[in-house]
Amino acid sequence: MISFESDYNNGAHPKVLQHLVETNGEQTLSYGFDVYCDSAKEKIKAACDDPDAEIFFLAGGTQTNATVIDSILHTYEGVVSVETGHINTHEAGAIEFTEHKVISIKEKDGKMDAQTLDDYLYNFLHDGNASHSVYPGMVYITFPTEYGTLYSARELDEIFQVCRRYNLPLYVDGARLGYGLMADGNDITLPYLASHCDVFYIGGTKIGALCGEAIVFTHNNAHEHFFNIQKQHGALMAKGRLLGVQFDALFTDNLYFDISRHAIEMAMRMKRIFQAKGFRFFIDSPTNQQFVILSNETVKQLCKKDIVFTHWGPFDKQNMICRFVTSWATKAEELDYLEKNL
Amino acid sequence: MISFESDYNNGAHPKVLQHLVETNGEQTLSYGFDVYCDSAKEKIKAACDDPDAEIFFLAGGTQTNATVIDSILHTYEGVVSVETGHINTHEAGAIEFTEHKVISIKEKDGKMDAQTLDDYLYNFLHDGNASHSVYPGMVYITFPTEYGTLYSARELDEIFQVCRRYNLPLYVDGARLGYGLMADGNDITLPYLASHCDVFYIGGTKIGALCGEAIVFTHNNAHEHFFNIQKQHGALMAKGRLLGVQFDALFTDNLYFDISRHAIEMAMRMKRIFQAKGFRFFIDSPTNQQFVILSNETVKQLCKKDIVFTHWGPFDKQNMICRFVTSWATKAEELDYLEKNL
Amino acid sequence: MISFESDYNNGAHPKVLQHLVETNGEQTLSYGFDVYCDSAKEKIKAACDDPDAEIFFLAGGTQTNATVIDSILHTYEGVVSVETGHINTHEAGAIEFTEHKVISIKEKDGKMDAQTLDDYLYNFLHDGNASHSVYPGMVYITFPTEYGTLYSARELDEIFQVCRRYNLPLYVDGARLGYGLMADGNDITLPYLASHCDVFYIGGTKIGALCGEAIVFTHNNAHEHFFNIQKQHGALMAKGRLLGVQFDALFTDNLYFDISRHAIEMAMRMKRIFQAKGFRFFIDSPTNQQFVILSNETVKQLCKKDIVFTHWGPFDKQNMICRFVTSWATKAEELDYLEKNL
Amino acid sequence: MISFESDYNNGAHPKVLQHLVETNGEQTLSYGFDVYCDSAKEKIKAACDDPDAEIFFLAGGTQTNATVIDSILHTYEGVVSVETGHINTHEAGAIEFTEHKVISIKEKDGKMDAQTLDDYLYNFLHDGNASHSVYPGMVYITFPTEYGTLYSARELDEIFQVCRRYNLPLYVDGARLGYGLMADGNDITLPYLASHCDVFYIGGTKIGALCGEAIVFTHNNAHEHFFNIQKQHGALMAKGRLLGVQFDALFTDNLYFDISRHAIEMAMRMKRIFQAKGFRFFIDSPTNQQFVILSNETVKQLCKKDIVFTHWGPFDKQNMICRFVTSWATKAEELDYLEKNL
Repeated sequence: MISFESDYNNGAHPKVLQHLVETNGEQTLSYGFDVYCDSAKEKIKAACDDPDAEIFFLAGGTQTNATVIDSILHTYEGVVSVETGHINTHEAGAIEFTEHKVISIKEKDGKMDAQTLDDYLYNFLHDGNASHSVYPGMVYITFPTEYGTLYSARELDEIFQVCRRYNLPLYVDGARLGYGLMADGNDITLPYLASHCDVFYIGGTKIGALCGEAIVFTHNNAHEHFFNIQKQHGALMAKGRLLGVQFDALFTDNLYFDISRHAIEMAMRMKRIFQAKGFRFFIDSPTNQQFVILSNETVKQLCKKDIVFTHWGPFDKQNMICRFVTSWATKAEELDYLEKNL
Repeated sequence: MISFESDYNNGAHPKVLQHLVETNGEQTLSYGFDVYCDSAKEKIKAACDDPDAEIFFLAGGTQTNATVIDSILHTYEGVVSVETGHINTHEAGAIEFTEHKVISIKEKDGKMDAQTLDDYLYNFLHDGNASHSVYPGMVYITFPTEYGTLYSARELDEIFQVCRRYNLPLYVDGARLGYGLMADGNDITLPYLASHCDVFYIGGTKIGALCGEAIVFTHNNAHEHFFNIQKQHGALMAKGRLLGVQFDALFTDNLYFDISRHAIEMAMRMKRIFQAKGFRFFIDSPTNQQFVILSNETVKQLCKKDIVFTHWGPFDKQNMICRFVTSWATKAEELDYLEKNL
Repeated sequence: MISFESDYNNGAHPKVLQHLVETNGEQTLSYGFDVYCDSAKEKIKAACDDPDAEIFFLAGGTQTNATVIDSILHTYEGVVSVETGHINTHEAGAIEFTEHKVISIKEKDGKMDAQTLDDYLYNFLHDGNASHSVYPGMVYITFPTEYGTLYSARELDEIFQVCRRYNLPLYVDGARLGYGLMADGNDITLPYLASHCDVFYIGGTKIGALCGEAIVFTHNNAHEHFFNIQKQHGALMAKGRLLGVQFDALFTDNLYFDISRHAIEMAMRMKRIFQAKGFRFFIDSPTNQQFVILSNETVKQLCKKDIVFTHWGPFDKQNMICRFVTSWATKAEELDYLEKNL
Repeated sequence: MISFESDYNNGAHPKVLQHLVETNGEQTLSYGFDVYCDSAKEKIKAACDDPDAEIFFLAGGTQTNATVIDSILHTYEGVVSVETGHINTHEAGAIEFTEHKVISIKEKDGKMDAQTLDDYLYNFLHDGNASHSVYPGMVYITFPTEYGTLYSARELDEIFQVCRRYNLPLYVDGARLGYGLMADGNDITLPYLASHCDVFYIGGTKIGALCGEAIVFTHNNAHEHFFNIQKQHGALMAKGRLLGVQFDALFTDNLYFDISRHAIEMAMRMKRIFQAKGFRFFIDSPTNQQFVILSNETVKQLCKKDIVFTHWGPFDKQNMICRFVTSWATKAEELDYLEKNL
């Protein structure tokens, strides 16, 4: 099997695993009060150039989204997201499970448009029925998006300004953050992100860790009882060190960024392979998720060669949209094999 | 004040009130186990020609929707509704409050289209990510819709057949049911409705009662513990007789239908008044809610004359969409006054 | 049937009903923005001697408890109640339905003891595992209690002082408030109550109304979005006037207090009837609920005479605890009949 | 620091870690569909002698309890637990967060008594107010309990028979299961457990794993959509292999049982150390948690020696209840150090 199915088909990056091995024998405090969590937090604050950041480590993306959003919203409020946002599509109702509505607005290339957001908020406030509706309590975007696309620094700023104007926290889901930050043409840095939203998370599960996401509240604005809310959500690890040690390794010697860059280079080479063979793309993605249009025939042929990828959905009767994903672990030989069999 | 703002600006129909007065001195059992609830249930079953119906009385529409939907859905399921469905817009998140997602699909004139529903369900089942999504567990429509429009008997049947094919209960929100049943051109009867959905409710609050909605599970299919779920939702009245007595009156001597018909006649006369004066309509509604396009100037003028209606939203810079509602209580003189001041 | 089963087996007090009749023809605004709600609020504020009070009308007790408690608690908090508190026993989990725990502590004669509360709170704060526990976010008591007993002014003050010290809002469930206020020996007045808790409700359903409870936030401390939370809970009446008109009548010419006093006088006469015949009481209640120990033989005999009461539970093999309730509607002849048949 | 504070202060058992290292480079399917999850499931089924078992791996105890319980209960039901049950005390309201009540009954030495359970269930069914109460929908016990105590095979069977009679699923929380199974005098085996409850979990986090609990539904009785419910709870790991690999190692060559036995031997030696020095115990525990009564003076003295343990709570003014925990990782030298410094 050669898998381009997702960025979580491999174990941990060797350096992450090594840090787990070398610290395994030590006794540490539980629930995230260990020295490795402390060390990782300091390194992340430095990388974000954000000494006021408050950082929490959780095991996975869905639990991170549900816990962060539930910690911010009041009971009568919902979270605004584009229709294609992960929380609105593929989290099995984890947000509604916390009793909050995902208020969906139109997307463009998987992205939220500042004007569309502004229009929605303006109309909400000027609607005579507002008091019978769910109040928007925060805004959620993903970087990169579910379609691999990216906001420019200017686009992010525009959204952030709308949020500021309406006094709504902005939350950025960074499940694949590194793959966005290291993409060609991207002009958003970690410090820029930290100063242009209220909370975001740095995805580890898809970028080098066995599991783990690092939530960054950017200005001492975590809920006073975030720890309790974490526990209530079943999102508090007894051996919190498992997460701390991994992020400690990821944020040592630029590892997180270097391995993210590797995935981008592999993705761009993959893109060229498809282009060279005349394939069209469903969307132009600069990151590690590539959406290619393949004939049903080609799909069958690749499956026979034991090449695994996601059958995203039908394009038309003869063709299918297929998702090919690279990661920190993708090898050049895997792309050679793909190229040979296309 | 002459109000066309809603169909709940008046008290009870005199015959409903009279029944409350004449039964007031009697002692009855509580929680809906009284003789008047029993009597009303029998009359409703007869009107529906549905001896297998199970009937419950609740005080208001939002609590009815939340209680019915929560009693049907499993924890991992959501309810399918058009975007403009009441549960998706103006119930303040009451469905999400029960931890269930409202899965919204496109509407046409406020209505659900059987083909659109079928497409959504087909795609859901053929989506590789289905197991990460909220499962559709039931379908919700309103009759009349939020825009006053109606399904034909054929359209309802088509939706019902799709639901049957996918094994999903169909729930019809009848907050204004009488106004739909008695509309010109409507070809759906109460027995037809009862045999073409799994559960619906007969709105009382907007049609002659002080409060009260009658839920009809059409084939002995109420949740075995619906009573408990009602109590858990805070939707169980200690003096259940208040609801039973009112529906007992409404379903005596055709009252519910007669007073609904009155509202329709008033609405049609109102429609002709607007048409005669050359006003356009935002949507063509055969029921008691009329959506008229008025210039901002006209809006101001009517307000000065103490005529109350709903400012639905802007049509364009110079014009506004306005909702005018008639009810069982609308008087001919009120329409005269409107006509004179247009 | 002669019913002593509950205080909600009758309709409305005639004066309450009369006010509904005489206002029925008027057009009013919906959702509680009508003149009768306004008038009732002013009268209640005056009766409480509390110009800073904020008042909301809801239809029933369980929905009132769930809405008030959910509006006060943060997501990680619970409400402290004695084990026998109504929210902990007979509301079908309506509080847990809002995702909050009822934290139960020991009761004495159905009452909370200030010292027991203090001990619980002290221990909670000094427990090393507190951050893994549900935080106490407010305190709930009932007046009268589920056993008909009453707090003295001093006992209430002691509990209130503990709440103040721990910065916890105190909520008093007054489903039968009038029957407590008008009991012999009671030294709590409405103004005293209003100045010794943060929120309470004045029960109408059990005292003269068809339905309705008046929530009193005592110092402008209602949640800013209480209206939305009400709607979200399905606890907002479209025709809010139904509640306003009734409370307007109840708080005119001392009606609420006079009819409450009547129930007490009937209860005390009933008590004497049982005492004269040598029956024992399960608990000494000064209010309208009396808990008598009857032999199984006597129970059968009374049932044969069509006298209805609540079989509360077994006392021992030969005897049963039975609850007899009077209300504003209890007639002297009904007690005569009971006396004759004992 | 020498820590007896908890059984999750160490990393993974070396053999568990080694298996993670040796499988790290392989590509596997995500979400638990990998070969290591499959292998671990087969080994666990064999160890339970239960070919009909359905097994799921989750990351931690609280999320396991919340997900299992929510998958079993209907909306109007609660879970019965003793007052000291973990779900009732130290899970921050994670069960109530799923909208279900924890119905608490009296404990004895941290255990549930079959007769007490039977009495509660009998009384519930014979209570006239049952329909206004939360229905018992399942029974929860822990093995070992929060106080380290154990049910005998007969006691477990008695509870199971009560559950069978009332048609309630029995769920056994085995966060420390191995430490119970390997205790001196224990007569419950894994196959016995699997045939005397409906679902249980095998704790990994506290016994050799970095994280992970293995849920065993004992007779093909997992919820058909357990996978979705897991996702909805944020309890589905993208790299499910992390859990599968670890349990694969734990259930190879008797590792889980051997390392559990080690902890017991260390605990028994610790017990003798305390006994030899004349200390009293708060409760007689045969497992890895020991509750000793220490004078406040002794507590201070041990802290000075950098010996860490849990200050459970005050015993009286001069003495404290202290919890000392051993684990698979406890070393003889650590006990030597404790002995020397007592």
